[in-house]
Amino acid sequence: MNTMEITKQADKVTKEELASLSPTELRDHIRAGRWTGGTEGLARGYAQANLIILPKDVALEFLIFCLRNPKPCPLVEVTDPGSPYITQFADADLRTDLPRYSVYKDGKLIDQPSNITKYWRDDLVGFLIGCSYSFEEALLNAGIPLRHQQEDKIVSVYTTDVDCVPSGRFSGPMVVSMRPIKDHQLVRAIQVTSRFPATHGAPVHIGDPSKIGVDLNKTDFDTGVFELEENDIPVFWGCGGTPQAVALNSKIDFMITHKIGHLFVTDKRSEEVAAL
Amino acid sequence: MNTMEITKQADKVTKEELASLSPTELRDHIRAGRWTGGTEGLARGYAQANLIILPKDVALEFLIFCLRNPKPCPLVEVTDPGSPYITQFADADLRTDLPRYSVYKDGKLIDQPSNITKYWRDDLVGFLIGCSYSFEEALLNAGIPLRHQQEDKIVSVYTTDVDCVPSGRFSGPMVVSMRPIKDHQLVRAIQVTSRFPATHGAPVHIGDPSKIGVDLNKTDFDTGVFELEENDIPVFWGCGGTPQAVALNSKIDFMITHKIGHLFVTDKRSEEVAAL
Repeated sequence: MNTMEITKQADKVTKEELASLSPTELRDHIRAGRWTGGTEGLARGYAQANLIILPKDVALEFLIFCLRNPKPCPLVEVTDPGSPYITQFADADLRTDLPRYSVYKDGKLIDQPSNITKYWRDDLVGFLIGCSYSFEEALLNAGIPLRHQQEDKIVSVYTTDVDCVPSGRFSGPMVVSMRPIKDHQLVRAIQVTSRFPATHGAPVHIGDPSKIGVDLNKTDFDTGVFELEENDIPVFWGCGGTPQAVALNSKIDFMITHKIGHLFVTDKRSEEVAAL
Repeated sequence: MNTMEITKQADKVTKEELASLSPTELRDHIRAGRWTGGTEGLARGYAQANLIILPKDVALEFLIFCLRNPKPCPLVEVTDPGSPYITQFADADLRTDLPRYSVYKDGKLIDQPSNITKYWRDDLVGFLIGCSYSFEEALLNAGIPLRHQQEDKIVSVYTTDVDCVPSGRFSGPMVVSMRPIKDHQLVRAIQVTSRFPATHGAPVHIGDPSKIGVDLNKTDFDTGVFELEENDIPVFWGCGGTPQAVALNSKIDFMITHKIGHLFVTDKRSEEVAAL
């Protein structure tokens, strides 16, 4: 599909029409405002990333925070200060190339626009942080089912009582996602996800949720909750909700993120960012 | 050996006396000024790291540079701005816990002291960057000999014509180390070093040196040069000399590094920083 054909299309496209597109073609639709929905299931096989945009005066502290907490905050790419352009994981503009954003002022959500051109300032820095879609695809390919997909829910996300390593004004508990894994598939699940350190990597905890301050029935987020079934082991991975929660708690006056589920689609295949 | 015994010792110790010490005991000797020599072969099994100290006003750009060039510049730990303390890879003070430093002012080497207490400023940031000793040990353990150790030389280091991905004022060519590997051990050498992304990881180039602008007989550094023998393949890895060369070229007015070969000894076993 070339740009001419895209331009001739109707204003909006359906998720089915997008399903077979490359990341570049998909971002063309998103940039033109024809797709403002979620990105799960799109551009399969390619890594997607969480977005956090912060003012330059806190960027060094935030970058150090991410380096100190690589499992919840795996850095994918950072823009030059003042620049909205991604150059390594795609050739893209962070102001327009995600389907929907969340804009925070003084810790309060003030807007969820489909582009942030009017909010851009020349002191902003964009951070792309790995998301778990890559390793979820790898789990499925390894024959390990994902309960939240089977039940058509969002993966369960919890705030733990495990403190991140702080950096400057950034501190707070680690946020994790939980996936029930059958005991006979536990070893394979650890092996498979270990290959993807850029997208949260190996689990941070296996088994008893209370050891990390989690009650499986009480999520702090608007996500799914699952009954553990026979032979299910709860397995916890670092979650990209961590840097967002930490940044919100840090009383920074301005922050832009992707809207939950509306991620940045990179040009890198998941296998290109795998460790081995 | 406890601290009392160390205090009673003569002013200086020999490398043989240090060989069996833990990283903490070794850093005690270094901090007290009793060891100002090189660290190769000491605290075997533990990761060592290159040191670069820069003013805070260039720290963000430098950190982004390292993230964009992870093979020559694998980040190990970054201090809080203004703080000389390492807290994750050891409990240590960067002003005193390396045996010897190089201090640069306006791009010129002005001092090589055994501590930098008098040079410390409250706007400095310390960067530890992985060094190749960890993967060299892993190569030896895998039965792959190291020519430079056999010939008692320093590993060959070359400046390539491959540009690093720039960040702000930091730009320049990648510096690499070369080790000749026998063709039947090439696959294993790649596998073994791939496990250590925090210490340069997998090779950046294999084979024909001219493809990356290298003449094996002409090193830009004061390092060894080797004749390739039968069945030798030249294998090139990213080198920690890269960030130092790039920082020197960037016309920063102040920088401190470790003196070549006089590295920071961490408390982490090489296997603890391995990818898998």
